[in-house]
Amino acid sequence: MDPRIREQAEVIVDHSTGVERGDNVVISAPTVAEDLVTAVHELVGDRGATPVYLGSSPRADRAYMRAVDVEELATPDHLQALYEASDVLIRVRATENATQHSDVPAAAQAQRSTINQPVQEAALSSRWCLTQYPTPAGAQLAELSTEAYENFVWDAIVQDWAAVSAHQAQMVELLEPADRVRIVSGETTDISMSVAGNPCLNDDAEHNLPGGEVFTTPVPESVEGEVLFDKPVYQQGREVLGARLVFEDGEVVDHAADKNESVLTSILETDPGARRLGELGIGMNRDIDRFSYNMLFDEKMGDTVHLAVGRAYPMAVGDGNEANESAQHVDMIVDMSEDSSIEVDGEVVQRNGTFVFEEGFQAV
Amino acid sequence: MDPRIREQAEVIVDHSTGVERGDNVVISAPTVAEDLVTAVHELVGDRGATPVYLGSSPRADRAYMRAVDVEELATPDHLQALYEASDVLIRVRATENATQHSDVPAAAQAQRSTINQPVQEAALSSRWCLTQYPTPAGAQLAELSTEAYENFVWDAIVQDWAAVSAHQAQMVELLEPADRVRIVSGETTDISMSVAGNPCLNDDAEHNLPGGEVFTTPVPESVEGEVLFDKPVYQQGREVLGARLVFEDGEVVDHAADKNESVLTSILETDPGARRLGELGIGMNRDIDRFSYNMLFDEKMGDTVHLAVGRAYPMAVGDGNEANESAQHVDMIVDMSEDSSIEVDGEVVQRNGTFVFEEGFQAV
Repeated sequence: MDPRIREQAEVIVDHSTGVERGDNVVISAPTVAEDLVTAVHELVGDRGATPVYLGSSPRADRAYMRAVDVEELATPDHLQALYEASDVLIRVRATENATQHSDVPAAAQAQRSTINQPVQEAALSSRWCLTQYPTPAGAQLAELSTEAYENFVWDAIVQDWAAVSAHQAQMVELLEPADRVRIVSGETTDISMSVAGNPCLNDDAEHNLPGGEVFTTPVPESVEGEVLFDKPVYQQGREVLGARLVFEDGEVVDHAADKNESVLTSILETDPGARRLGELGIGMNRDIDRFSYNMLFDEKMGDTVHLAVGRAYPMAVGDGNEANESAQHVDMIVDMSEDSSIEVDGEVVQRNGTFVFEEGFQAV
Repeated sequence: MDPRIREQAEVIVDHSTGVERGDNVVISAPTVAEDLVTAVHELVGDRGATPVYLGSSPRADRAYMRAVDVEELATPDHLQALYEASDVLIRVRATENATQHSDVPAAAQAQRSTINQPVQEAALSSRWCLTQYPTPAGAQLAELSTEAYENFVWDAIVQDWAAVSAHQAQMVELLEPADRVRIVSGETTDISMSVAGNPCLNDDAEHNLPGGEVFTTPVPESVEGEVLFDKPVYQQGREVLGARLVFEDGEVVDHAADKNESVLTSILETDPGARRLGELGIGMNRDIDRFSYNMLFDEKMGDTVHLAVGRAYPMAVGDGNEANESAQHVDMIVDMSEDSSIEVDGEVVQRNGTFVFEEGFQAV
């Protein structure tokens, strides 16, 4: 076994989820990640906790989703019961074929997201962590050799999370007391929103491994302007390219995409909350130095900003503020490396990817 | 996908468990059985039921079992919650390495069996089926080529279960009203027991796929005599050869084995019920024509009888009769093909493997 798999397991069990004696742990992972599943089981045993291995087979799930009548889709409340009786959920992503769900109707997938909401809520009520295991198909998606992709994944994951946290805290200090945030990139993106009263969180690899972003929540009705997401959005096994959204009074009033616009449409039509923003995130992990068509990594990349339509994270919503509700939470990324800026209450805090607290920052 | 996999999935979903609209289904299977898992998911979707795929990784489980302190082993009540909220449990066995648990201490495995009893009971309270998926390692264990083993497995599974049921019903008619059953084989086995008042069940592939036995329950304290199990017992990844048990007043008072006697000892020492019998079964499936070191098949083989130490099946115990309780249920097989007989209340009903209702039976 690659020694970095055991290092990843240690970060998951000790740093991200703090597994301890007596914990009921669920490890949810596809078959292809068995090495990591094994390393995690060993540590869970050592810590005196009790594991359940929940498999995931995208092949089997696709077969189910194509066979089932959409009207007969039901909430898997047996799965919900499992999560409700658990203390820790470790969810491992790994793909054998990133386009496995490409021939499952998007409407069925959107409907499933809706009916699975109680299950999702039960899952998120535990101490949870989402991480990645590198596979040849993941490498292919990232347009890398398998070895280069393994290096990419484990370089991003196995690192000094205390140092990352300290670096990111500087941005949290700027955003936490902020009201208005404006994001400008080229001629295509000029969008602003209030984040007043909403906490700004420092993602130092507790829930996401790798971590490496700071994020907060837009006040839903405050969002105005338009945005072009110039990085692809990978959803339901399909690549949405050149997604564009126009907001008025916080709602998407117009949308388009150069490729797979119907997927974007089906996301936005899931429920009213899917037409509003649920997250503003700023990627700060400079160890993630390339796009890999995987949101868990892409949204953390330095020189990017991401916005999510759909559900807000309750911990990123201040008391008395509205938390957008939706079955969806779809992140989309804006490249901020050139001809771009982030303004906080009228002050530029990042220009062309360089933060105000970093060397080389240009105020004007 | 081999078309026999879809045929197996149909037997599981329609004949064995009767999956229907609205059912919560758990499919528990190792990673290596993904083809069958996929075929079952497709049918579960078609029937309008809701699947959860529960993985099983013997590699990961071994790592956990070696790392955990036996005193810290706890009942996985999150798994129990999953089963309690389920209607159907489909459990698929398939091995990548039949000796994966050979370096896990037997005492830890016995202790786990004990603490997992509530989970086991929750699992058995659903409509459940245990079946097999053929793998190269399974073929190796059976000392067959992979193709020959696939033929063996699917020949045993995909068959006319109504015809099997009718054939077996003849033996049920003899055993159902019986009191005393005596089993004699060579110089080494002469054991008798009462089955008075206990139902005799016709296993036509509802809970076990393949099916192919009739079975009932000994009255625990009635068992007297000695028995040599001349087929190997595969337990905890170890092969117990030449297991011998001596019973007095229903209890094992002496035991021995030619190989891995310590495994046999640890089974018998699990709890008081592990030293008493919980099942008498008669293998009648003539399509299973060879021993494959797999109890799911071996116990169904024609010309064999099996006895299990440990837990009795409640449905095979009559009202007011005692149901033996134990964390164990370990089947062990006696070859009845030569120099052997089964007597029911003093009448020979099988001699040298041929039943009284079959051609060629010799009364004396």
